[in-house]
Amino acid sequence: MAKAVESDPGSGGSDVPRLSLDSIRESLIRQEDTIVFSLIERAKFPLNSPAFEESRCLDSGNSSSLTEFFVREIEILQAKVGRYENPEENPFFLENIPHSVFPTHKYPPILHTKAVSVNINKRIWDVYFKELLPLLVKPGDDGDYPSTAASDLACLQALSRRIHYGKFVAEVKFRDAPQDYEPAIRAQDKEALMKLLTFEKVEEMVKRRVQKKAETFGQEVKCVSGDEKNYKVDPLLVSRIYGEWLIPLTKVVEVEYLLRRLD
Amino acid sequence: MAKAVESDPGSGGSDVPRLSLDSIRESLIRQEDTIVFSLIERAKFPLNSPAFEESRCLDSGNSSSLTEFFVREIEILQAKVGRYENPEENPFFLENIPHSVFPTHKYPPILHTKAVSVNINKRIWDVYFKELLPLLVKPGDDGDYPSTAASDLACLQALSRRIHYGKFVAEVKFRDAPQDYEPAIRAQDKEALMKLLTFEKVEEMVKRRVQKKAETFGQEVKCVSGDEKNYKVDPLLVSRIYGEWLIPLTKVVEVEYLLRRLD
Repeated sequence: MAKAVESDPGSGGSDVPRLSLDSIRESLIRQEDTIVFSLIERAKFPLNSPAFEESRCLDSGNSSSLTEFFVREIEILQAKVGRYENPEENPFFLENIPHSVFPTHKYPPILHTKAVSVNINKRIWDVYFKELLPLLVKPGDDGDYPSTAASDLACLQALSRRIHYGKFVAEVKFRDAPQDYEPAIRAQDKEALMKLLTFEKVEEMVKRRVQKKAETFGQEVKCVSGDEKNYKVDPLLVSRIYGEWLIPLTKVVEVEYLLRRLD
Repeated sequence: MAKAVESDPGSGGSDVPRLSLDSIRESLIRQEDTIVFSLIERAKFPLNSPAFEESRCLDSGNSSSLTEFFVREIEILQAKVGRYENPEENPFFLENIPHSVFPTHKYPPILHTKAVSVNINKRIWDVYFKELLPLLVKPGDDGDYPSTAASDLACLQALSRRIHYGKFVAEVKFRDAPQDYEPAIRAQDKEALMKLLTFEKVEEMVKRRVQKKAETFGQEVKCVSGDEKNYKVDPLLVSRIYGEWLIPLTKVVEVEYLLRRLD
């Protein structure tokens, strides 16, 4: 996978790992495919709301929904294999991340140390289950909660990774033009930062591209092509998911990161 | 998701849930999309062989590779939310499946009770890591083992589900024409059963269709289309994966199931 950081043997001993805007863009574009795939996969199942709305655990000490239980436990397990050493990954529930029981990869320190304190997964969780999912899937309940929860996890992690990638986006923008950002950061002026980070033309292009991806990846592929197009998820909805939630929430992460950038 | 079993309120109290060949076919076709998506996602990462080849666990009591540890632990967790109540799911490692800590869905008993003893996941594991994966991904090691293991799990589970779906395929074929199968089953004649289950024209069509799916889902989607086609995985390889492994292993499951069908 494209990495935002490139080893730079010619940098003559600089301590700061090089950050490339091209590789950040490449990663964001590739992440779109992952997000569209995961939404299409989730749309196989109906809403199955008892999985994430109801506390039905047979162990009376546990008041989580099945989905929350599953995501919490998976995160502990993923921490044990080193997932959260990667600054691209942000847990939904872990307060104290357990140590990995395997040797971990050392990621070069690109982000400001305060980056770990930027985590809007609680908001992403609420948006996903309350707003996005009811638009994406059919209503109903087929009882297949284990598969549904696994599918929700895939969506949540893909969305969270994309949104928190805003930290890298903000870092590279800051490095490119610190003089543009420093006054707003010193004034802790969220509105000014949001304005500096907003490029409507780029946002429109992203929305058009993900719509096209949903059309391409969500079509029924047959050996003999017919004229009818049945999409597994509505391409306009995917564009809307980006426009209403993914792009704005990524900018929230960018702003939150920049507010801490001079600490 | 299309279910192989349909509720049949008009069946007048028959004990045998109705099994529809159309819905089995529909499920297999939909599973192709899941498999192609999961292979494309795995191809983001290089081989990362230390994740699945080396025992590097820091807990000296554990000699698993990272990937094996991860899959074993995930299966325990998935069992706790009821995954293996679903006859479509077959674990890789679980010998004794832990009870679910949530109420589970009751699946109608369609398959013969001996179905649970048909599990070729050990073979699928070996084929996947030793034969399929080195053809699918770039060689190399980027250290991102946690994401790689999660991606391998998605592929393994998608492949395993498809291959073990052979139990449903065999059941519906048997019900449609028991007289064709019973002599070979009584003689425990694997070769005769394999011959009864082989339809080369259908297999060729499946291979062509998955190749087309890999072309469609693995292309670079841009707002302005260019002429060049860069595929994220080689469409011919996906066709080969079906021809060399998925279709033959599904038939192995079908035969193993039928051998027990009259017990």
